[in-house]
Amino acid sequence: MTAEPSPLTIAQLAELAGVSTATVSKVVNGRSEVSSETRAAVEELIRRHGYRRQRRRSTPTALVELVFHALEGDYPVEITKGVAEVAREHGLTVGISELRRDHSAVDAWMEGVLRRRPSGVIAVFSGLAEAQHERLAHHEIPLVLLDPADAPGKNIPSVGAGNWNGGLTATRHLLELGHRRIGIITGPDSALSSRARLDGYRTALDMAGVPVDPELIGRGDFLVEGGLAEAHRLLSRPGRPTAIFATNDGQAIGVYHAAHELGLRIPDDLSVIGFDDLPSVRWAIPPLTTIRQPLSQMAAAATSMMLTLAAGEPLPQSRIELATDLVVRGSTAPPGLPAS
Amino acid sequence: MTAEPSPLTIAQLAELAGVSTATVSKVVNGRSEVSSETRAAVEELIRRHGYRRQRRRSTPTALVELVFHALEGDYPVEITKGVAEVAREHGLTVGISELRRDHSAVDAWMEGVLRRRPSGVIAVFSGLAEAQHERLAHHEIPLVLLDPADAPGKNIPSVGAGNWNGGLTATRHLLELGHRRIGIITGPDSALSSRARLDGYRTALDMAGVPVDPELIGRGDFLVEGGLAEAHRLLSRPGRPTAIFATNDGQAIGVYHAAHELGLRIPDDLSVIGFDDLPSVRWAIPPLTTIRQPLSQMAAAATSMMLTLAAGEPLPQSRIELATDLVVRGSTAPPGLPAS
Repeated sequence: MTAEPSPLTIAQLAELAGVSTATVSKVVNGRSEVSSETRAAVEELIRRHGYRRQRRRSTPTALVELVFHALEGDYPVEITKGVAEVAREHGLTVGISELRRDHSAVDAWMEGVLRRRPSGVIAVFSGLAEAQHERLAHHEIPLVLLDPADAPGKNIPSVGAGNWNGGLTATRHLLELGHRRIGIITGPDSALSSRARLDGYRTALDMAGVPVDPELIGRGDFLVEGGLAEAHRLLSRPGRPTAIFATNDGQAIGVYHAAHELGLRIPDDLSVIGFDDLPSVRWAIPPLTTIRQPLSQMAAAATSMMLTLAAGEPLPQSRIELATDLVVRGSTAPPGLPAS
Repeated sequence: MTAEPSPLTIAQLAELAGVSTATVSKVVNGRSEVSSETRAAVEELIRRHGYRRQRRRSTPTALVELVFHALEGDYPVEITKGVAEVAREHGLTVGISELRRDHSAVDAWMEGVLRRRPSGVIAVFSGLAEAQHERLAHHEIPLVLLDPADAPGKNIPSVGAGNWNGGLTATRHLLELGHRRIGIITGPDSALSSRARLDGYRTALDMAGVPVDPELIGRGDFLVEGGLAEAHRLLSRPGRPTAIFATNDGQAIGVYHAAHELGLRIPDDLSVIGFDDLPSVRWAIPPLTTIRQPLSQMAAAATSMMLTLAAGEPLPQSRIELATDLVVRGSTAPPGLPAS
């Protein structure tokens, strides 16, 4: 009769598997830059022996650290609600930080995290360097990225939305209303979410047999100001679009302003569709038609993933995408008379 | 030569002053339900001997707990920014909770706070009972109320804005433009901030020799929906107002909708003034004239007060009010033709 096997530490697993502790740490932290054979070998050892998270130098604080680039508008509120809901169920509080592009703020935050030893980190922020990811992993503080600008390449667990599909759906909605001259205002080129929405727009036009006109593609910044400036440009030229896909709700509000300044009525003279469905756009005049991105649910999913990792369990998948939905309100309608 | 006196604990101060430890605790925690003689006696003892905060059972977490009734709209974002700025300077993180009117959430939060032992609590929430205030005081966790519905009666340190003055300024702005039929939509009667804004409105009218017409006073709820419903009522009756003081920005957006539905143009047919100056109302069409309430600075001031208390120092004053300002944008103008 053999004794019940006792769970192994990372060091013991590494020795048995003949790999480094860093590699075992990557497997148990849900990272994907590990060969599938090594991952399978380590996971098999964990199944057989169990895995014992090393005792931390101090007790972790019952805290989820939530990091934003900027605290502005409804977007961080929706995310915080989703994180707080799951955190509360687990008796954790939510710690919020705004880091912008400030390196000293990032460094100070990282020192604070290592001191506080939270249960884990949810980053809605792309300013953490690879070295900072490694530091968190080294201290066994799980990290999940939410709506990352550049996720899939980074091999950190992440949650996003179906951006390409949302771009396709938004553009199809305008096509189905009868629009053919459909403008788009993108976000920054560095944001994969913006690239995906633009690609969805192109594919919808292509499948409808409508040629993509580069003159109708405006380059925005995901801010109201960028939407306003680009909409002015698109709407002031001859053969202006009869509809604009603003690719986020902030830019859609910018389009409303440009239309107002140019004396164009929404939706009579111009249809506008956003992306996000922030609570405030229900109160735009007219209420905004948009693609709903379930930010609170995405945040809740990221928190659940983080808690799974914190419990020392493997993630079933390291990337989750939640579906987007079309929400039709008052800002889209069939095109009116042909534009001059 | 006498030895340097060593600082006294609350128990020692209580013995010397001949009062209870609860009373000394109230003095050092900035509470005001202590007679001025007792307060002076305790403060004199502290000046002479110094005051040594009792050793807590465990090290406090470098955390400010920030509690909201609801995470909705720009308001919690502005507050969080102000708290986070001061917290960061002191190496603290900010923990956020949304408690609504849910007693079990409040109880769970209180248990969590006692476990986490934060540096202090900032409550933007009126749902903590006197017993909960006492529990925090007993555990020497300082509490500061921010923009409380019912502050001055509660004897807890608090920060607010000049609501009466803001109401006066808003109404005077409309009077100076030439308006005489000026409607108001209040918040809930239980909110002192709403009462103060209404009183400022009454006084401005009175000083201008304009009689207060009870028919022009609408009872709102500080939500967009309430503003919409009350504006509909005020604007649909004969002798409608030519201007409405919405008393918060959310209700002002509701007034915009009512005006739009009734075919009234802002500011040509109706002037509208809000209160708060949330970032989003700059992007209303037309941009909203409003009374700016410096929410981030109020939050920063509350955090500084909390940190003063956490350091065991007395507060110079237990109530701070920051001034409000008139911000003139596009939603107010002289009245047009007399209403039918």
